[in-house]
Amino acid sequence: MARQNVKAPELMVERWFNSAVPITLESLRGRPVLLHTFQMLCPGCVTHAIPQVKRIVAMFRKEDLAVVGLHTVFEHHDAMTPVSLEAFLHEYGITFPVGVDRPSENGPIPRTMATYGFRGTPSLVLIDRAGNIRHHGFGQEDDIALGFRLGMLMSETAPAQREQAEDPQHGCDADGCAAPSNG
Amino acid sequence: MARQNVKAPELMVERWFNSAVPITLESLRGRPVLLHTFQMLCPGCVTHAIPQVKRIVAMFRKEDLAVVGLHTVFEHHDAMTPVSLEAFLHEYGITFPVGVDRPSENGPIPRTMATYGFRGTPSLVLIDRAGNIRHHGFGQEDDIALGFRLGMLMSETAPAQREQAEDPQHGCDADGCAAPSNG
Amino acid sequence: MARQNVKAPELMVERWFNSAVPITLESLRGRPVLLHTFQMLCPGCVTHAIPQVKRIVAMFRKEDLAVVGLHTVFEHHDAMTPVSLEAFLHEYGITFPVGVDRPSENGPIPRTMATYGFRGTPSLVLIDRAGNIRHHGFGQEDDIALGFRLGMLMSETAPAQREQAEDPQHGCDADGCAAPSNG
Amino acid sequence: MARQNVKAPELMVERWFNSAVPITLESLRGRPVLLHTFQMLCPGCVTHAIPQVKRIVAMFRKEDLAVVGLHTVFEHHDAMTPVSLEAFLHEYGITFPVGVDRPSENGPIPRTMATYGFRGTPSLVLIDRAGNIRHHGFGQEDDIALGFRLGMLMSETAPAQREQAEDPQHGCDADGCAAPSNG
Repeated sequence: MARQNVKAPELMVERWFNSAVPITLESLRGRPVLLHTFQMLCPGCVTHAIPQVKRIVAMFRKEDLAVVGLHTVFEHHDAMTPVSLEAFLHEYGITFPVGVDRPSENGPIPRTMATYGFRGTPSLVLIDRAGNIRHHGFGQEDDIALGFRLGMLMSETAPAQREQAEDPQHGCDADGCAAPSNG
Repeated sequence: MARQNVKAPELMVERWFNSAVPITLESLRGRPVLLHTFQMLCPGCVTHAIPQVKRIVAMFRKEDLAVVGLHTVFEHHDAMTPVSLEAFLHEYGITFPVGVDRPSENGPIPRTMATYGFRGTPSLVLIDRAGNIRHHGFGQEDDIALGFRLGMLMSETAPAQREQAEDPQHGCDADGCAAPSNG
Repeated sequence: MARQNVKAPELMVERWFNSAVPITLESLRGRPVLLHTFQMLCPGCVTHAIPQVKRIVAMFRKEDLAVVGLHTVFEHHDAMTPVSLEAFLHEYGITFPVGVDRPSENGPIPRTMATYGFRGTPSLVLIDRAGNIRHHGFGQEDDIALGFRLGMLMSETAPAQREQAEDPQHGCDADGCAAPSNG
Repeated sequence: MARQNVKAPELMVERWFNSAVPITLESLRGRPVLLHTFQMLCPGCVTHAIPQVKRIVAMFRKEDLAVVGLHTVFEHHDAMTPVSLEAFLHEYGITFPVGVDRPSENGPIPRTMATYGFRGTPSLVLIDRAGNIRHHGFGQEDDIALGFRLGMLMSETAPAQREQAEDPQHGCDADGCAAPSNG
């Protein structure tokens, strides 16, 4: 079965925490990316998704997996300002980079959230080394299944390697495909 | 063994959520009271203590046990304003009364917290029918032990009842009483 | 409300583990009793009920609460012999007394189980100081609710104590009493 | 880094449950294999490892992952006979094949356990499509880490495919190696 590649849209972030410089997906090409979206007052995020992502951050090296958080506030905007988020990140011991999704002028849904079509929080996106979306989930992610997806993703060679090693026209095997980078 | 009675100091609250009128401990005399203090950005409160208190609220009738929350902000004051607290209470489905501990002019510790000498959040105080402190704990409360304390507390008759045990006017039965306040 | 007293039937046990002498409910009069029935190959017993009972054993003194286990085998009799039970008790660190319910000649349900009308395993019976059944439950017991029942039960004075409530010799205070047995 | 391939020794089983025919690792070549060893009276097996393996069985197709259980009794032999094991498998809803490790004439450690050098139960071995041991763990396996290992393992192409597609002398990339089958 041919898998259709969908390129992960670039993040639209107004402010970063835990990163000295703005982060782009483009700059992460070559590494698998786990994009974790949350709201600080979302119970499912706080009790399940954030602890899960923290365990993943502790388990893998940054060079093997890039973990990026995104604060996608779509309700209670006054209650979840960057001031409150900063205290939240401190109290919950969140040390991976977290971007504040850029608010929209047209409604409560912030821009990156609207572009990706997230159904709510928590949402989780896995992006392969070539920048394609490989998983897009809403709600709780099972630990074993998420670990499995990460194992599949990390076992793929990067597109440039595949182009050297194999037929550049296909780059697929029975388990999936890695598209060439658009770099 | 003679138990020394320590009267629970009155609450100093600047604003109530989930209650149309201000709540005083004085007005709750005759009922055991569970006073639960928390901060909305305290992980131990959010993942353990608040779910535990919610289960207790669901388990007992209000006439048998009064549950009162107290938001004792002693750090990150700008991040945990009443605006943020209101959204928090909504998102976490907290329906029992929650008071905002009155800020102090002399430091970060709010007034009720200072008076009770709470070591941090979560703290839990159990108050008997006569208004005396019977338990004062900091951190996680074991479910069985807390249930046990509640069983002990609720099985006590109210002080007035003890003094006039045959008085039929006070509407008591073998399982408990709502005594007149001793104020 | 008048509570109807149902006397707990005596145990019919063919062999005791963790007790040098046979245990009778009669001999425990004056103390509340937690009677925990299980089968060693019952998943709900092993994953929930037994760990819960072990925590209760660790929490209370034997003088305040007697915990008695009962192995009520009603299926797979060849698979759950006393030889297997003994290894089970060792491996699971069960140190409270456990009796083997006496098999019936008339069917798979052992005798104590039949007399009490247990619906299956785990079952839990709470018996007050006077030997009356106060709770009879099948399946998982909620920690808070079970703790509450224990608190209610332990706060009761023993029957003999009730009859002579002013006797100062028995060393009781408002939190409870350990009455002499009425044996 | 060159990974040294260690071929998984063949199982020595005296009796199979949940399989009409004896199972050999040889017959599973081409598929990754999860070999799960346990004892029915091992608490860590019952509360953690077996539920984890059952979730894995439910998550993957048999064609993608072969799960094989092995009952490696090294203590309490009289308490964990095949009669007891059969009831255990029934009560715990274990439907994947389980072999009884063949007892040794020289001591309490059964034969497959001795050959593999298992330190105890639960132990878990992951075997790749070519029959090599890729993971050998004792005790609790983290869900995410185990899922990750499965993802890595399943993403590998079988040795025959590699031999066609690549240099048969190497078959390695930065993430690991798949050795040629010895078939």
